Amino acid sequence: VTLDAYHVILAGGSGTRFWPLSRAGRPKQVLALLGGEPLLRQAYDRAAALSGEERVYVSAGTSQREQIRSVLPELPDDRFLGEPMARNTAPCVALSALLLSRVDPEAVLIVSPADHVYTRQDRLASALSTAVETARAAPDALVTLGIRPERPETGYGYIEAAGEEVAAGVPPGVRRASRFVEKPDAATAARYLAAGSYLWNSGLFVWRARAILDSIRACAPDVWRPLDTLARDPGFPGSAAALEAAFAAMPSISIDYAVLEKAPRVLVVPADPGWSDVGSWDSVAALHPPGDDGNAVAGDASGVTTAGSRGCFVFRGAGDRAIALVGVEDLIVVDAGDALLVCRKGESQRVRDIVEALRRRGRTDLL
Amino acid sequence: VTLDAYHVILAGGSGTRFWPLSRAGRPKQVLALLGGEPLLRQAYDRAAALSGEERVYVSAGTSQREQIRSVLPELPDDRFLGEPMARNTAPCVALSALLLSRVDPEAVLIVSPADHVYTRQDRLASALSTAVETARAAPDALVTLGIRPERPETGYGYIEAAGEEVAAGVPPGVRRASRFVEKPDAATAARYLAAGSYLWNSGLFVWRARAILDSIRACAPDVWRPLDTLARDPGFPGSAAALEAAFAAMPSISIDYAVLEKAPRVLVVPADPGWSDVGSWDSVAALHPPGDDGNAVAGDASGVTTAGSRGCFVFRGAGDRAIALVGVEDLIVVDAGDALLVCRKGESQRVRDIVEALRRRGRTDLL
Repeated sequence: VTLDAYHVILAGGSGTRFWPLSRAGRPKQVLALLGGEPLLRQAYDRAAALSGEERVYVSAGTSQREQIRSVLPELPDDRFLGEPMARNTAPCVALSALLLSRVDPEAVLIVSPADHVYTRQDRLASALSTAVETARAAPDALVTLGIRPERPETGYGYIEAAGEEVAAGVPPGVRRASRFVEKPDAATAARYLAAGSYLWNSGLFVWRARAILDSIRACAPDVWRPLDTLARDPGFPGSAAALEAAFAAMPSISIDYAVLEKAPRVLVVPADPGWSDVGSWDSVAALHPPGDDGNAVAGDASGVTTAGSRGCFVFRGAGDRAIALVGVEDLIVVDAGDALLVCRKGESQRVRDIVEALRRRGRTDLL
Repeated sequence: VTLDAYHVILAGGSGTRFWPLSRAGRPKQVLALLGGEPLLRQAYDRAAALSGEERVYVSAGTSQREQIRSVLPELPDDRFLGEPMARNTAPCVALSALLLSRVDPEAVLIVSPADHVYTRQDRLASALSTAVETARAAPDALVTLGIRPERPETGYGYIEAAGEEVAAGVPPGVRRASRFVEKPDAATAARYLAAGSYLWNSGLFVWRARAILDSIRACAPDVWRPLDTLARDPGFPGSAAALEAAFAAMPSISIDYAVLEKAPRVLVVPADPGWSDVGSWDSVAALHPPGDDGNAVAGDASGVTTAGSRGCFVFRGAGDRAIALVGVEDLIVVDAGDALLVCRKGESQRVRDIVEALRRRGRTDLL
C-alpha cells in the first residue's frame, strides 16, 4: 500500500461488443476475458494493492448490484456507488467526488474504468504515483494518464500534449494537455503517431475531489445544478429518491466531453503501462500471442485441433466442446456454450450487428 | 415397381471425412447429411420404389448390424448381407452374387453405394432401366453407370468410353468402356472434360449374378477360390465360421481394381442423374444453394445470424446452439454438439488430419 488516494472504479457498462460471451446480465467487466479473474476483479485487486481495500469504491447501476456482488462479494454497500439510471460518466464521476469530499475533504481520487487492462503493473503504479503527486502539488488541476501510442490506432481518442508543466512539487515529465481529440481516421492517426506529441486517452483520471467539483461547476452547469441540489438535501447521501431526482435531471454525458475538453488546467502524465481498453474481440485476440501452431487459445488448448490454419484465436468460454480449424486464417472463434461466433479478425466491431439482428428477431434468450 | 432386378446396397463404409458428425459408430451412410432422411434410408427407399422392397439387400459389417437397424428397422436378417470383416468391395460383391444366384439363378443385380446422392431420380431410373436391359441382352457383360462430367473434377475416377455397343437387345447409347482411370490431376481432368469421351465412375454397377461370378473367377482367382470353397460348404449360407474363413482368405480389394479394370466386356450407360458421391463437407456444401444473405444452412436457419458474410455453409447437426458469422467468406461450419468444425471451402479433405490428430491424442470420445 503506497498510494495515498481513493479509487473509483467505473463498472457501469453494459457493452454488447463481447457477444456471445457478454449478455445483458453479464457485461464485459464481469467476464474473465483474459483468463483467470474477471476484469473488474483484477481492477479491484490492483487498486486495493496500491491504496488499501477500504479506499476502493465501485460505481455501477443499482440494478447491477448483484452482478458486482458475484465478482466482489466482499464489497460493502457503503463502497458501492449505485447509479439509479445510466447517464454516461459525468454524473457518476460528479457523485463520486461529492461523496468522497464528505469522507475526506482532501481526498485525491483515481477514477478508472473497470474493463481496461495493463500488462505492466509496475509502470502503471509509477505513473499513478506521479499523477497523485501532481494532483496534490497543483490542487486545481485535472490529471490524466496519456498512453504513448504504439501504432496509428483509429479506435482510441487522443490527447495532444503541450509543454512540460514546471511548478513547485509537480514531478518532471508531466505535460499540459492542449486538446482532446476524437477517434481519428487512419491518415490522421498516422500523423499523430509521427508527430510524437499525441497520447492515447486512457480514460484514467486523477484529481482532488474539490478540483473536479469546481471544474464541473465551471464547465458543466447542467451537471452541477442537480448535484448541488442533491448536496444540500438533508437526506444526502442516504435518500434514494433525492439521488434519483438528481440523476434524472442531469444530462447523459461523458466526463471527457462535459469537463475535460473545456477545463483550463488539464495535465497529462505520459506512460507506457501496456494499456488496452479491451474494446473488442480483436483487442482480446491481440493480447493472446500465438502458440506453436500459429494460433492462440484462451481456455483449455487441448480441446482445440488445427490443420493448415494460422493467425486464429479461439476463446473457449463455456463447456468443453472440441473445436477444429481446417485451412483457415485470421479468424476469431468464440464458444459461449449456447452461442457461437465466427468472426474475421479486424471485423469484430460488427458483432453489434449480430446483437441488433437477434434483438429484432426477439431472441432475448441470447441477449 | 418397374425394374426387374435385385438391389445390393453397399453400406459398410466407416469414413472419417465427415467428422465431427461421423464417428466410429455413426458412419456417413447413417447420417442425414442432406436434411431429411439418412443417406442409407434414401438409398433403400429409392431401390424399393424401383424393384419392390423384398428385392433390396443391404451389405455391411456384421458389427454394424445395429447401426443399420436404427436406420432400416424393417430390414429382415435374410436381406442383411453381413461381412465378418472389412475387406473392401470385391469380397462382399462376390458374396452378394453367390447368395443371389441361389435365390434366383437369372438374377440381375444393381450394386450401389449407400452414400451417394442423385438429384434427378427420374434420370437415374431411366439409366438403370437401360442398364438392366443391357445386362439381360448381353448376359456376360458388366454394366456400369458413367456420369457425364460437369467440371474437371479431380476427386473422382473416370471411365474412358469407346464406341457404341451395337448388339441385339442392347439399347442405343450404351458404350464400351475401354479404360478405368484413377483420380486425375487438374490438367488431366481438364483434358478428360475437353475430350468428351470420359465419364465419371459412379461406382454403380449392374450385372447378372452369373456374369460377375464368371468374371471374378477369370479376373480375380484369389477372391474366387475362397468364395468357391464357401459355395461348396454344406453349411452355406448359414455358417458364420465358413463365411469368416472365406473372408479371412480373401484379399482386401475393390471390385473396380479386382475385376472391372480387367474384364473383357464392360459396358457403360452414360447418364446425367445429378450424381454426387458426397465425399466431403465440400460436396455437401455444394448441394446446399445459398439463401437470401448469400450463405446456406442445413438445419434450422433461424439459429444462424450473419453480418458481412457470404459463401458460407453452416451445418447444424446437433443441439440448438446459435451460430453467428461476422465478416467471413467461404467457410464450412459444422456443429455436432460435442465438437465443432470450422473449415475453409476447398480444404475439407484435411478433416482427416483432425481425426488423425485426435487419435494420436487419445481422444477416442470424439472419434
